[in-house]
Amino acid sequence: MDKMFTVRLSSDENAVEILDQTLLPNRVEYLRLETPEELFEAIHSLRVRGAPAIGVAAGFGMYVAARSICFDERERFFGALEETGNYLISSRPTAVNLSYAVKRMLDRAMGFGRAEALPLLKAECNAIYNEDRAMCRAISELGLTLVKDGDGILTHCNAGALAATEYGTGLGTLLLGKELGYNFHVYSDETRPLLQGARLTAFELLSAGIDVTLICDSAASLLMKQGKINAVFVGCDRVAANGDTANKIGTRSAAVNARYCDIPFYVFCPSSTIDFSCKSGADIVIEERDGSEITSLFYEKSVAPEGVKCCNPAFDVTEAELITAIVTEKGICRYPYTESLSALFKGG
Amino acid sequence: MDKMFTVRLSSDENAVEILDQTLLPNRVEYLRLETPEELFEAIHSLRVRGAPAIGVAAGFGMYVAARSICFDERERFFGALEETGNYLISSRPTAVNLSYAVKRMLDRAMGFGRAEALPLLKAECNAIYNEDRAMCRAISELGLTLVKDGDGILTHCNAGALAATEYGTGLGTLLLGKELGYNFHVYSDETRPLLQGARLTAFELLSAGIDVTLICDSAASLLMKQGKINAVFVGCDRVAANGDTANKIGTRSAAVNARYCDIPFYVFCPSSTIDFSCKSGADIVIEERDGSEITSLFYEKSVAPEGVKCCNPAFDVTEAELITAIVTEKGICRYPYTESLSALFKGG
Repeated sequence: MDKMFTVRLSSDENAVEILDQTLLPNRVEYLRLETPEELFEAIHSLRVRGAPAIGVAAGFGMYVAARSICFDERERFFGALEETGNYLISSRPTAVNLSYAVKRMLDRAMGFGRAEALPLLKAECNAIYNEDRAMCRAISELGLTLVKDGDGILTHCNAGALAATEYGTGLGTLLLGKELGYNFHVYSDETRPLLQGARLTAFELLSAGIDVTLICDSAASLLMKQGKINAVFVGCDRVAANGDTANKIGTRSAAVNARYCDIPFYVFCPSSTIDFSCKSGADIVIEERDGSEITSLFYEKSVAPEGVKCCNPAFDVTEAELITAIVTEKGICRYPYTESLSALFKGG
Repeated sequence: MDKMFTVRLSSDENAVEILDQTLLPNRVEYLRLETPEELFEAIHSLRVRGAPAIGVAAGFGMYVAARSICFDERERFFGALEETGNYLISSRPTAVNLSYAVKRMLDRAMGFGRAEALPLLKAECNAIYNEDRAMCRAISELGLTLVKDGDGILTHCNAGALAATEYGTGLGTLLLGKELGYNFHVYSDETRPLLQGARLTAFELLSAGIDVTLICDSAASLLMKQGKINAVFVGCDRVAANGDTANKIGTRSAAVNARYCDIPFYVFCPSSTIDFSCKSGADIVIEERDGSEITSLFYEKSVAPEGVKCCNPAFDVTEAELITAIVTEKGICRYPYTESLSALFKGG
């Protein structure tokens, strides 16, 4: 994304700067978030979204918050920082990268007063950022070993640079592939209800010069049957120790359809997304969001009868057995995951 | 639909009365159509829609027109009625039920002067109406043998009373069941891109006092996994001789997900929908509609980047093997259909 960025620390270090993704694709506008409340709102309202990007934003946000804390003394300083961290985590409870980044920042600050902690925290949030860039590149290179030039690839939601720092995870292979001369035919699920596929993925791939076709989520099944899809690429929000994977609502439907049509289904994520404390998908709490996202958001007027009940889960969990492989920066794991995932981490 | 109706003859017999479906779900407004021109406009603009409902409206419209013809003499009377019929047919030239109903009315009037023809025509348009009601009722009664009180039922698109006369096809079981005291928990797919599930099905079921929850199409998979769905009910546009079924885009995705979760998937239709001249789904041409239905329709502003390619098939074909049973007014057929469908028609 030439000249564009998803999230960064402002040059005066008093704010987290983000691209407001709720305005895409019609407007490209950046926000300066100076307080934890502003960052909370931006994360909660999906102005910045995508697990890695949220983690990076939280890292920067913790540093900005630390700078604004007026207590020097280490216990009071840490107490205030911890309070901010817990507050930020509550903006998107399902996002493991968010709590991971907050925890890293807190661990780094522990035992220090404000003066000593600040340079350590600055280094730490920059490290989170730089590790994310390197991680996306490594994932993208591994992803290219799974497909070939000319393949048709289905994506759901947005796991590109807009969800991370440089290449992203799920779309990284496509973005890196484009740079290396691959010609993929990408089908982007619009991804109801928040339309990240239409607003973000189609925007991002089109901007990168990639051949992208927008479809309604439920049309993917027909395209698979017609032989137009060679692989499905998705990012994810959380992977359990057994490989069960939480991602944007609709991911499981794509996985079930891919399995029925014998099409490989790949999950891309930083290894930090794998949560070994979570035994299986049954332990993952699914965030339920407001029904107005279905009935009213984006629309000129409501498209549903007043007072109708809605069920609007933000995520679903795809069973490990439906996932052909999980691609992290440390390597490619194949089903069954209980052994392959932990082996990868013990080895690496 | 308590107190509501889709189409009827006015009590003074001088007009066709319809519910204006273009205003749903935000406004419930009835129109009194007194002239052929008004009825033409209502059919053409989809104020009344659904193949059976259009046929019924045309039948009533021909009777109302006949009453307003001032010639008594049989040739001049029939000439004027025929002219009205051809005019009405041209409002939606591809709607088979429309030309079928007009032709039935003309056949009935042939050879009579106005005075003798009017009671015959009144009986004929009422017969068209009553036959549709009886067909829907028979389908709905058969449907009730497939479910039990308290079941969770997923629907896609709209195959209810708004598309027909009283109960409709796919939703008929739910509407009749409600009258008989069943408590179903219905999940209505919003049905992208045209949102018939949000605009029409949710409205219709809510109006009938049925417990209905609106969901995004791709959320159905999660609800199935959570055990909330006991059966899937859909209508259809065309059934091939082998049971392959064309219906609104997204139907196949629901069927594939239902199969993976071991949930029965039922198709409801009048027996006239089964096309024995069509051997299998491979012979069904899929209509491709404009991409602006995905990117712009209903929206305040475009939700996709300008110039993005879209693929917008209007329907898909669900393989017979994914369909647990096909329910017509003549009986319930189960897979494999090649024999069961033709046996039903030879028998009945």
